[in-house]
Amino acid sequence: MTGSGPISFARGAPSLDIVDVEGLKTAAQAAFTNDPAGAFAYGTSVGYLPLREWIAEQHQVAPERVLVTNGSMQADAFLFDLLVGPGDAVVVEKPTYDRTLLALRERGAEIHPVSLEEDGIAVNELGALLESGVRPKLAHIIPNFQNPAGYTLSREKRDRLLALAAEYDFTLFEDDPYVALRFAGETLPTMLSLDGEEGDRVVYASSFSKTICPGIRCGYLVGPEAKIGEIRRRATNTYISPNMVAQSIVNEFCRSGRILASIETVKAALLERSTTLGDALESELPDARFRRPEGGYFMWVDLPDGVDVAGLFVAAGERGVQIVKGTDFLLEGGENAMRLAYSGVKAELIGEGVQRLAQAVAALDGA
Amino acid sequence: MTGSGPISFARGAPSLDIVDVEGLKTAAQAAFTNDPAGAFAYGTSVGYLPLREWIAEQHQVAPERVLVTNGSMQADAFLFDLLVGPGDAVVVEKPTYDRTLLALRERGAEIHPVSLEEDGIAVNELGALLESGVRPKLAHIIPNFQNPAGYTLSREKRDRLLALAAEYDFTLFEDDPYVALRFAGETLPTMLSLDGEEGDRVVYASSFSKTICPGIRCGYLVGPEAKIGEIRRRATNTYISPNMVAQSIVNEFCRSGRILASIETVKAALLERSTTLGDALESELPDARFRRPEGGYFMWVDLPDGVDVAGLFVAAGERGVQIVKGTDFLLEGGENAMRLAYSGVKAELIGEGVQRLAQAVAALDGA
Repeated sequence: MTGSGPISFARGAPSLDIVDVEGLKTAAQAAFTNDPAGAFAYGTSVGYLPLREWIAEQHQVAPERVLVTNGSMQADAFLFDLLVGPGDAVVVEKPTYDRTLLALRERGAEIHPVSLEEDGIAVNELGALLESGVRPKLAHIIPNFQNPAGYTLSREKRDRLLALAAEYDFTLFEDDPYVALRFAGETLPTMLSLDGEEGDRVVYASSFSKTICPGIRCGYLVGPEAKIGEIRRRATNTYISPNMVAQSIVNEFCRSGRILASIETVKAALLERSTTLGDALESELPDARFRRPEGGYFMWVDLPDGVDVAGLFVAAGERGVQIVKGTDFLLEGGENAMRLAYSGVKAELIGEGVQRLAQAVAALDGA
Repeated sequence: MTGSGPISFARGAPSLDIVDVEGLKTAAQAAFTNDPAGAFAYGTSVGYLPLREWIAEQHQVAPERVLVTNGSMQADAFLFDLLVGPGDAVVVEKPTYDRTLLALRERGAEIHPVSLEEDGIAVNELGALLESGVRPKLAHIIPNFQNPAGYTLSREKRDRLLALAAEYDFTLFEDDPYVALRFAGETLPTMLSLDGEEGDRVVYASSFSKTICPGIRCGYLVGPEAKIGEIRRRATNTYISPNMVAQSIVNEFCRSGRILASIETVKAALLERSTTLGDALESELPDARFRRPEGGYFMWVDLPDGVDVAGLFVAAGERGVQIVKGTDFLLEGGENAMRLAYSGVKAELIGEGVQRLAQAVAALDGA
């Protein structure tokens, strides 16, 4: 092992250098000065009201359709608690976020994975599943720079999903934390916006973890007013209100415009890291197949058949580089695939990290 | 109605004048400067580690026995999810916190209310209940300045509860958010500390809502390592980690010693408000019976038989004063009782508030 410490492509998290620490200090002072009553008192379970309004404006919906939570995982948990009981059918992408699989399994859902293609979920496969009689309560979709694959759902498939949701009466859970992190290509409309003002097919989730920082634990849901009202009741009974101190800081950070500069910083770093990673993979692991993402944190890498990622995980760890096994994102399969998160690795370390990975693959071949 | 705006004895919350806004600004700057990585990155589900250690020191336990949460209601929810399923017997105080009753009912618990006396839960009544064959999973006890009664559990009864928990094998849930707010009398040892270092009978919960501010949403559990480990797993699956930004601010506020000054400010105000309220009640509502608390936020007031608190609630609201009905804290009874929270009402408004209440009672008598 050359070079210094461990290099982690495992964690979907930003490195500290792309967090606007000074901006957060300024936002905290402003929030605590301008609205101490709002920051420090018990709030309401829908979140800090000025932030709720800011989010509603961004999505051009009524504030009553927005609920701000302690991170978007908590938002997911509220939604799953509302809609998914034991034996309920749920559609997920194959592969998908491992914590979503876990949350659904814990609720006893009947999980139907549908293949993910480079332009998003295989809508024909989903259509056939629905025609075969499966009646899901919801379909969980990560439309932009999907976790773990990095792929983005095409405009055409967005429309198709909305049509299927209407025809077969299920909720589209549009899980969209990476949307603001597009560094190439054109932004596509959310399914939430395509569903229209009176639409009730989509529940949309996003977060400030990727645009401000994860430790602020601030996520949100936008959905039909009736569903948001139900979740509001659950949120009250769970924790009275989410974190007002943190949400008042987020509100100041957003309304001051500082978030725009923060997003530019993050996107520039992600583009550089993603490009460096793609180049290094092409040079060091020429047999690996992957698609260069247009945004977000992740790259899905297929290794040649016969490479066992469980062994690679160990061999890589021994060489000081961390990955996540493809199998973690699937109910079955993924044995020769891995997820590389480039969000937390500075560009100057990426080459070294990929060299270590290539050495680990070579060591497996020789084994 | 004389005087100006509404006066609320309803909300168990501090007024903004006893929140140390400047101290919180200073703590935020210090936290974000000294440990930006800790404040802004994903943390772990046990909470911000330096704060976890500070809490462990306060209770003289190993840090592994502590889990810091997004407010103590969330801590309660985790514990109830772990221990209480449909049909499980649970002992509560009669009266008790209305949100606890709701949380237990939502989980389908078989609730056994045991009378609350001025020195705490009626241990003989509890003993008889246990002897009759009821086998609770846990007993929920608010030992200091109970919500809603304001009463405090005596030292003798603390020992007796521990003995009963050992004999009948149930968990004592010591729910203790008000402990630091004693403004009269002597501090009693927690049941957690009486249970000893190797004890596994007590799960203790507290919060910084009353010593710093509610909007910071920071609570915690201290319990047996195995139970805390189980809850840690649930916390990870629910929200990855609680709010690191807020917890890093709390940590700075505690470690700088600023929390001690904050507690003194709060206690001085509560003593003044509680004394003023007691005096005003004696003068304006001489038939009301109540016990002056030694700390905390609340006073339980019994009105003469025949006064219907549902009618009083309406008549008081019409006169610009809010109370909470005794019936809200009980499965049955409490029709002539109310909870007055003096935490949020400045002393100079309390006399006016009680005059309005007395007018409302008089209007009922005449009805």
